Amino acid sequence: MRDGRSGGIADRVDEQGATQMETSVKISIIGAGSAQFSAGIVRDLCINPGLRGSHITLMDIDENRLDFVWRLANRLSGELKAEIGFSKTTDRRIALQGADFVLNTAQAGGHQWAEDQRKLGEKHGYYRGTKLHNFPQMQLFLDVARDMERMCPNAWLIQSANPVFEGCSLMHRETNLRILGLCHGHYGYLEIAHALGLEPEHVSARTQGFNHWIWMTDFRYKGKDAYPLLDEWIETKAEAYWAQNEFEFWDNQLSRAAIHLYRTFGLMPIGDTPRTCENQGIGWWLHTDLATKQHWYGALGGFDSELGWQAYLDRLQHKVADIEQAVTDESKPVTGIFPPVQSKEQIVPIIHALVNDTEGMFQVNIPNRGGIVKGFPDNLVVECQGVVSGAGIRGLNQPPLPAKLMAGAMIPRWSQAECMIEAMRLCDYGLLLSCLLMDHRTRSLQQAEQYLQEWFADPRNASLARAFGVLR
Amino acid sequence: MRDGRSGGIADRVDEQGATQMETSVKISIIGAGSAQFSAGIVRDLCINPGLRGSHITLMDIDENRLDFVWRLANRLSGELKAEIGFSKTTDRRIALQGADFVLNTAQAGGHQWAEDQRKLGEKHGYYRGTKLHNFPQMQLFLDVARDMERMCPNAWLIQSANPVFEGCSLMHRETNLRILGLCHGHYGYLEIAHALGLEPEHVSARTQGFNHWIWMTDFRYKGKDAYPLLDEWIETKAEAYWAQNEFEFWDNQLSRAAIHLYRTFGLMPIGDTPRTCENQGIGWWLHTDLATKQHWYGALGGFDSELGWQAYLDRLQHKVADIEQAVTDESKPVTGIFPPVQSKEQIVPIIHALVNDTEGMFQVNIPNRGGIVKGFPDNLVVECQGVVSGAGIRGLNQPPLPAKLMAGAMIPRWSQAECMIEAMRLCDYGLLLSCLLMDHRTRSLQQAEQYLQEWFADPRNASLARAFGVLR
Repeated sequence: MRDGRSGGIADRVDEQGATQMETSVKISIIGAGSAQFSAGIVRDLCINPGLRGSHITLMDIDENRLDFVWRLANRLSGELKAEIGFSKTTDRRIALQGADFVLNTAQAGGHQWAEDQRKLGEKHGYYRGTKLHNFPQMQLFLDVARDMERMCPNAWLIQSANPVFEGCSLMHRETNLRILGLCHGHYGYLEIAHALGLEPEHVSARTQGFNHWIWMTDFRYKGKDAYPLLDEWIETKAEAYWAQNEFEFWDNQLSRAAIHLYRTFGLMPIGDTPRTCENQGIGWWLHTDLATKQHWYGALGGFDSELGWQAYLDRLQHKVADIEQAVTDESKPVTGIFPPVQSKEQIVPIIHALVNDTEGMFQVNIPNRGGIVKGFPDNLVVECQGVVSGAGIRGLNQPPLPAKLMAGAMIPRWSQAECMIEAMRLCDYGLLLSCLLMDHRTRSLQQAEQYLQEWFADPRNASLARAFGVLR
Repeated sequence: MRDGRSGGIADRVDEQGATQMETSVKISIIGAGSAQFSAGIVRDLCINPGLRGSHITLMDIDENRLDFVWRLANRLSGELKAEIGFSKTTDRRIALQGADFVLNTAQAGGHQWAEDQRKLGEKHGYYRGTKLHNFPQMQLFLDVARDMERMCPNAWLIQSANPVFEGCSLMHRETNLRILGLCHGHYGYLEIAHALGLEPEHVSARTQGFNHWIWMTDFRYKGKDAYPLLDEWIETKAEAYWAQNEFEFWDNQLSRAAIHLYRTFGLMPIGDTPRTCENQGIGWWLHTDLATKQHWYGALGGFDSELGWQAYLDRLQHKVADIEQAVTDESKPVTGIFPPVQSKEQIVPIIHALVNDTEGMFQVNIPNRGGIVKGFPDNLVVECQGVVSGAGIRGLNQPPLPAKLMAGAMIPRWSQAECMIEAMRLCDYGLLLSCLLMDHRTRSLQQAEQYLQEWFADPRNASLARAFGVLR
């Protein structure tokens, strides 16, 4: 891509004699210990005839989980009689060698580190923690990306672990890699369709913005503008919907918060957007404490409250237990848990489209080259619809977002992201401190400095502390 | 300018037979009741031979103050034997008719309205008030600008009343006028030179940014970088300077706050920048209460504390009293108070440069056409150096500001301004509410809504309330 040509992998493989529509690739999964994610990819790959003969390298620093996922992958592949090869390693560089695609799903320090950082934030007066936890993540992203520049500079980096928005923008600024961020949030419009009683096959939606900050610019039912149907639902049915109050932690798409944001900014926030707690700017007032969260998101207080998050972790644990049992119990096929149907996950179809030149439309996070999302710099990674083919990924040009959404939501969100991206890029203590000072809950300079000091003192942050000049 | 040609006034006057270097213009001063401002302009005009024969129309809604200033202007002009004509009116449209230059120095509702709004803010939990007071100002700006489009569409609008940044950007977006914002803040570098013991005639500085948010990108003494001299002063003399603590309200240029911002963002903030209380984002931590302000700005707590502001008002009152006495006392010349020396005020020299094509460099606030200040849209009014001549005002292209300053200070400040500009432009209640919610001190949605409700209920805000759909 960087040399102006496109495709690359398909071309190369063609020269090796593969047919146009069947190309084997080498995919490396970083943080492959997440059984659900990895097995989902393996299954999607097994049932995709266009990627026959591909090889997956599973990489994780947790050897036990890696072994487990490796067994699961082999069983899945065996049951589906797929021609997919597997290898596993705890060494990232070995995993990256010769990769065509790198999927980064790793979480620095895992859930425990996230929880510990959250607790530290609460100790310093930040209910449910702060965005500081993005920094160890972004440092890991950069480490992976820099290893890729050495080991597989022409590979695509597909980033699925958060923060996709800030992290992809950072990697794009710091490397020459082909970067693609993926997320499921844009499917949120289907939840709206469901609530409105619309047949999903006749519903279409367009969303754009930044990852976890996307807005529905177009919403159609049987070809006609469906926003009036949403407005009618809000007018006549929303109160009853909110009153039932039996929401799961993921039920945020039609929450009071989502409708409040829609009323304030004029477009419907989609997916993770209405739940996203932007304590540095917009939406902090929906998240000040549990009671407030419960008002806006129902009894669980949404995804990110102490109740909602616990429900999420519990569910995750159950799923992992189910998977473990299925893998251990050789008497039953694992396809019982991972049936041979392509998931909603876009990763494998996108790889297929790229290497076999089968044009398709996807929701992607890509650099804003040429101003796909108007009013933001080219070096920011934005979320938009993109056409994927052998020619690469081309973002769909969009009309400008409404002035009100730009001024009230998009520019403020960019401003926060920019401070975080540049703080990490420059390893600048002043900018890092600024990120915290812009947190709406910070009451004094001293509070922010003391929190930062204790955060840097954690041994798990030693390399960040060195990078920021706090530790020598 | 809009038709691609330049000059205009000088050309027109040339056709009428005036010599190239002596052009009479018609200048209208809106809000002329400010004796100090108006008399300063009159004096500068009287002593500028290039503008002989010009006419000044003084306009104010306060008839008494208008009469007073008119008498003062006539006495000044008489003593200086200047060929300047004067008229006065309380009718804005009459004042604007045929104007070549309109100086807008008016403050909606005067100091009393500002104080009343501040008190209302404090009642709702906002120490020293909020930025809501900018809205009646911006509404007045737009009223003046729209009248100009009808009465004198080719005139220059010179905006000196605040908020220059948001207000000029708003007028630029909403009208086709030639807009110029002017301020004195950029002279702040001379205070640094003074503290450092440098001979001012050998000191030069370049500053850019937004009005009241400008940063010294270049600082030279006898041609050499003088930033190291500043760094040395900070290292060796700043503590002693701060310890003396006998600061006037205007002594903010070398305050602890200024040096803190310099250390955080890497460039020295100039003029009003270090005092500017940006409660929506950067710097709120310097202004949380009087004790905090006193730490950062000395015993008075800076310009904007209850002590500093009272000192400013007292001084203003004394000046007005002095002027009143001088005007009333016919035994002494008023040139005793307004000696016949060109002030530091750029207005008259700029008018001279424009109409007589005498090229000169000034510090101006103009639309960011072509990206004078990099990274911001064309429709924003930025502060930069500009070359003024018969060809108009051409901003000096600048290298990009440092990434750290952009991410930590410039983009956040733009984000706040954008919300305010668009709230007023669209008269959008949601955006107005967003401005308040972004105020770091807002604790809940309810707090912001109640404050806004009471603010709109003030009869002086009736037309704003109608414009925003709050009052029908």
